[in-house]
Amino acid sequence: MLRLSFILNIRPSSRQIIYSSRFTHSIYPLTIREVYDKKPLNQSINLIGYLLNVRKLKTHYFLDLFDGSLTNNQKHLQVVASLNNHPDLPHLIYGCSINVQGKLVRSNHPKQEFELQAETISLINSCDASNYPLKPKSEQTLLMLRKDEHLRLRSPLAQVVFRLRSQLMFSLYEYFYKHNFVQIQTPCLTRNDCEGGGETFRIQPYKSQTTQVEKEYFNDQVYLTVSGQLHLETAANGFGRAYTLNPAFRADKNLSRFHLAEFWMLEVEVAGFTKLDQLLNAYIDLLRTIAIDIYSKCSEEFKYLSKNNIQSTHINRFLQQNDCPRISYEEAVKYLRNSVDFHNFPDNGDFTRAHENYLCETIMNNQAFFIINYPKNLKPFYMSINDDDATVANFDFIFPSIGELSGGSLREHRFENLKLSLDEFDLTHDLQWYLDLRRFGGMPTGGFGLGIERFLMAITGIDNVRDVILFPRYYQHCDG
Amino acid sequence: MLRLSFILNIRPSSRQIIYSSRFTHSIYPLTIREVYDKKPLNQSINLIGYLLNVRKLKTHYFLDLFDGSLTNNQKHLQVVASLNNHPDLPHLIYGCSINVQGKLVRSNHPKQEFELQAETISLINSCDASNYPLKPKSEQTLLMLRKDEHLRLRSPLAQVVFRLRSQLMFSLYEYFYKHNFVQIQTPCLTRNDCEGGGETFRIQPYKSQTTQVEKEYFNDQVYLTVSGQLHLETAANGFGRAYTLNPAFRADKNLSRFHLAEFWMLEVEVAGFTKLDQLLNAYIDLLRTIAIDIYSKCSEEFKYLSKNNIQSTHINRFLQQNDCPRISYEEAVKYLRNSVDFHNFPDNGDFTRAHENYLCETIMNNQAFFIINYPKNLKPFYMSINDDDATVANFDFIFPSIGELSGGSLREHRFENLKLSLDEFDLTHDLQWYLDLRRFGGMPTGGFGLGIERFLMAITGIDNVRDVILFPRYYQHCDG
Repeated sequence: MLRLSFILNIRPSSRQIIYSSRFTHSIYPLTIREVYDKKPLNQSINLIGYLLNVRKLKTHYFLDLFDGSLTNNQKHLQVVASLNNHPDLPHLIYGCSINVQGKLVRSNHPKQEFELQAETISLINSCDASNYPLKPKSEQTLLMLRKDEHLRLRSPLAQVVFRLRSQLMFSLYEYFYKHNFVQIQTPCLTRNDCEGGGETFRIQPYKSQTTQVEKEYFNDQVYLTVSGQLHLETAANGFGRAYTLNPAFRADKNLSRFHLAEFWMLEVEVAGFTKLDQLLNAYIDLLRTIAIDIYSKCSEEFKYLSKNNIQSTHINRFLQQNDCPRISYEEAVKYLRNSVDFHNFPDNGDFTRAHENYLCETIMNNQAFFIINYPKNLKPFYMSINDDDATVANFDFIFPSIGELSGGSLREHRFENLKLSLDEFDLTHDLQWYLDLRRFGGMPTGGFGLGIERFLMAITGIDNVRDVILFPRYYQHCDG
Repeated sequence: MLRLSFILNIRPSSRQIIYSSRFTHSIYPLTIREVYDKKPLNQSINLIGYLLNVRKLKTHYFLDLFDGSLTNNQKHLQVVASLNNHPDLPHLIYGCSINVQGKLVRSNHPKQEFELQAETISLINSCDASNYPLKPKSEQTLLMLRKDEHLRLRSPLAQVVFRLRSQLMFSLYEYFYKHNFVQIQTPCLTRNDCEGGGETFRIQPYKSQTTQVEKEYFNDQVYLTVSGQLHLETAANGFGRAYTLNPAFRADKNLSRFHLAEFWMLEVEVAGFTKLDQLLNAYIDLLRTIAIDIYSKCSEEFKYLSKNNIQSTHINRFLQQNDCPRISYEEAVKYLRNSVDFHNFPDNGDFTRAHENYLCETIMNNQAFFIINYPKNLKPFYMSINDDDATVANFDFIFPSIGELSGGSLREHRFENLKLSLDEFDLTHDLQWYLDLRRFGGMPTGGFGLGIERFLMAITGIDNVRDVILFPRYYQHCDG
């Protein structure tokens, strides 16, 4: 039997190590961030980091140490070393990594609270400075950093972007945790190739020892998932509220600033939504809560981006709106046909980015907005058919400068309707398991997908998806 | 410019909707869990769920409603409906989904606090009861549930398991967030096929419209990742502390209770560890903190498992130990050679599960323990070579009844050493980017991987990996 009393007893002491307000060496090596937080003055400490700058004065060297633990690289730590004790210091150059042991003391300099008086300084690795792409004191742009995906996290600008990404992920986890959602890991490998007409990746086992390719590892052809929604619905039917935050894959050859072969996607599925408006309200609540959370927790990161001329005016406006306009597909078509460029828009035509841009910029005055109730023949089998029997209860959410940020729908929960649709597309055999969800009870559910990279672009104003994922994969590009 | 003042102003009201202590309908449909939490007595509410049981009395029906929002299915909600108002109730059968609108009132029954007086009850979907695998009041086992992966989340037993999995994930996110780690999404698609000798999956683009298979989407052969560690090291070199919690893939044909083709893996990488013991201490701190967090937050789930004879005595013992024994590879070999079964153990031989089991059960008295400092020729190129030039600073962590739960090491951070190793394996060209991390400074780092499914097995005592991942993929098996 589990002795919970025991566990509860050891809990505080176990946590004490980590969250103590006294200065104690944590279980992890000390960082400059912790030095700024805990200010262990007159204590002997040890730090590792990169050398950003060396200044030689009459009797001392002044070194700027940076370890990536703080957002703002202005908050490096100043290390002071006497010439006498450190005769080999001239060998230390920009970019090298060093280990400094010394005492933290108050600084006389008005611009800094304290400095590290070095007792010993040792070189960890030197830096091949002539080939190092991150030059000292030169301005870095996201475009330049993109050329060195493996080194860009040494740059404060890319650090800010990936700190924001990390915060975005945690804000999402926390939101769903607080709302009693169950997180599911839907599979990346799937036999389901039937959603939308997108191109998918096939997988094959590969024997690295030989070059022999085997035909079958699974009993059937298996693909990389384009969406976890169908699998997630099994969880929404079980728990009521479920989400997945997983990689998804599309073998798309589009080289635009929005397209990736591997991207991350939040998918949310909730039982009990019976009206599309309820789903839209929940969606807006999520976006709003997450955006506000990130802004309030990462103000320093946003200031840094702003200084580098990266900012999103659109998200600010979105947060000030009480709601987002909702127009039907039918209304959107009318707007397009009243325009000069799109007056020939066909019946039941699908919207391209050009159409979405026109609607957003010209009709919606650059606000984020929903297009709802598309013709059923434009959308996949699983969307709930409206009473008109012609449209489905779905939405696309169009965000200025991004385009489609999300798509979602109520799902067809009525057994007979779903069976008809599956029969029509000859999917009943392959998706018997999905139909089963309705065959044995089954709750009405609704949900949506939200691309993490696009959301990050919307929040930050960064205009290329390759800057917000560490190792981007796209057509003809898979480095590392 | 971002108006932060505005954001901070709207924040409380936006949260108020969600966390208000008054009973207000949340932005999400009401659940039975919320009814138990907020007790909206004498108010009109609406609920959807599955019918577990119908009992007919003289003037009333009593229905048990279950919606998956609570762990314990004994905490369904009792619905009372008068015979007069609901003439069609006899059609409602076990497993069907219904919508109930009514008033929550205090119950006279001593076993329940309140009940829902139905005003209207409507059927959502009936249930094909004769084919429904989850029979009423029959005992469910994980083995039975495994046959219906898509339906098992309708079962309280599987619900408990996947609630624990969801809590495990969140406990990990929270731990790393509190310790200022940056979460990275390392790529699933990689050109890197060189870690260990495992079998990998190759990917190919597939045009769903035609059957034409194209040779190249990327410029090179691309695989599904077996580990994100190398990519993660770029982040540890940037931020100091980084982790990834991603899917990983192995085309392994082993059908044991431990093997999956797609599994989830935590990988942690920290700068500044210079001694193996520091890494081991951090590893133990993580395991301990997470296990305690899950036990304290999910006591109801563990009680439920225990009633179903599922429990882990090993994790309890692990939590009571102050530390775990650490033995070297050399010592482990000596123990094996002193045994009857393994006295012929070869020089520099690798350990199989049989060896690990013997060491754990016979030598370590069924405690979790570390084996450290393996011969360098048994381990990959990236592990830090010890001063003896014969062994590496690595560990395998052996957990009773699981076997290897984790492996980790200090990484070879010295440029010259790493270059020699890469040259030896003819990897210098392919992994130039990895060598670059040391060429331009580069901090000493250490880290480990932890399989989420195995950790969940260790915590719960569940003995088959297929029961702890929703849609397991393994040799000849990829359903849905």
